[in-house]
Amino acid sequence: MRAFTSETSSTLLRLPPGTDLLDGLTSAAKDREITAAWVNVIGAVRKLTFGFYDQETKEYTTLTHDGELEIASAMGNVSMKDGDPFVHLHVVCSGTDGRAIGGHLMPGTEVFVAEVLFQTFRGEGPVREQDEDTGLALWPTD
Amino acid sequence: MRAFTSETSSTLLRLPPGTDLLDGLTSAAKDREITAAWVNVIGAVRKLTFGFYDQETKEYTTLTHDGELEIASAMGNVSMKDGDPFVHLHVVCSGTDGRAIGGHLMPGTEVFVAEVLFQTFRGEGPVREQDEDTGLALWPTD
Amino acid sequence: MRAFTSETSSTLLRLPPGTDLLDGLTSAAKDREITAAWVNVIGAVRKLTFGFYDQETKEYTTLTHDGELEIASAMGNVSMKDGDPFVHLHVVCSGTDGRAIGGHLMPGTEVFVAEVLFQTFRGEGPVREQDEDTGLALWPTD
Repeated sequence: MRAFTSETSSTLLRLPPGTDLLDGLTSAAKDREITAAWVNVIGAVRKLTFGFYDQETKEYTTLTHDGELEIASAMGNVSMKDGDPFVHLHVVCSGTDGRAIGGHLMPGTEVFVAEVLFQTFRGEGPVREQDEDTGLALWPTD
Repeated sequence: MRAFTSETSSTLLRLPPGTDLLDGLTSAAKDREITAAWVNVIGAVRKLTFGFYDQETKEYTTLTHDGELEIASAMGNVSMKDGDPFVHLHVVCSGTDGRAIGGHLMPGTEVFVAEVLFQTFRGEGPVREQDEDTGLALWPTD
Repeated sequence: MRAFTSETSSTLLRLPPGTDLLDGLTSAAKDREITAAWVNVIGAVRKLTFGFYDQETKEYTTLTHDGELEIASAMGNVSMKDGDPFVHLHVVCSGTDGRAIGGHLMPGTEVFVAEVLFQTFRGEGPVREQDEDTGLALWPTD
């Protein structure tokens, strides 16, 4: 199996209120010239846009929650796609009753507070290439 | 954007049954003189106390589940606040039907099993200061 | 409190579609001779098998979702048990309506996409031993 192993350094930062979460993470990765990293985020949003990938139709369904939610968990990664750092993040959010929803983060998520960890690779990381079987841009497996 | 980058070392440990999860993590951080870290936890609790922050009223609603739950995910950080290590953790827990609930961890959560990772910064980390806009003690953004 | 602190190196890899998630992670750990690590995974599954541990009866209830789900979060660890690398992973998954379910990952979970981070200890990690109080194989606390 193809695997990418490296030393890492870690970065903590907070995205300001009003930032689009996906844009803010992507900008932070580009500003730091990150080509490969693991990402964790906790905080809260004013609005959430996320999706579910239909493995048959190979299309995302988009869901929107227009209101306050806690970011109970967000994890994912930065890797190169089409020559640029690309952020892939999955989120779990919860509302005032505690019930959790989750999925694939999409543009259209407004940060209230986002405390971010980038665990950045010093060495080479995987590169995303379009994969016909899944319909997604994925890392190599061999 | 203000960011804090450092080498890290990692620590694995288990909190004993009966420990208050937030107290146990805070004590572990203080004992190890951790001033900045990322934290992950999995395990199970006998009781969960967690909250949802109301962005308008700037107050937490507290929710309690008085019974067994899996800790499906817990992530957060340690940073300095008022001169002491301060733990900020968000949890996702699930019951016997698998349904997930989540939010901001509060005192009053009793550990059954807690397997903990501290990813500890060697260098300087962010410090929490009261922020008027959000009503929260937050890291600097610039 | 007993704790295990070490430098780490990090590995990114993708498990191919059709892999059993728990088997695939265990094989990857064995192939890399990992004795201690923290693990994060995001992606999607075609089928999920997970469990809830009953703290009184000391038995797992097994739940199965036979269909597509996003892996919104998966975290856990590798440590030695009975002389072999053992993977303990907790998952949060979500369906087309966004609702999240979670618990203890079991054999019988079929990968569609699994993007994996291993954060591997260079030094000694904890070893699991059977614990009478909880009925589980756990790390030492002292």
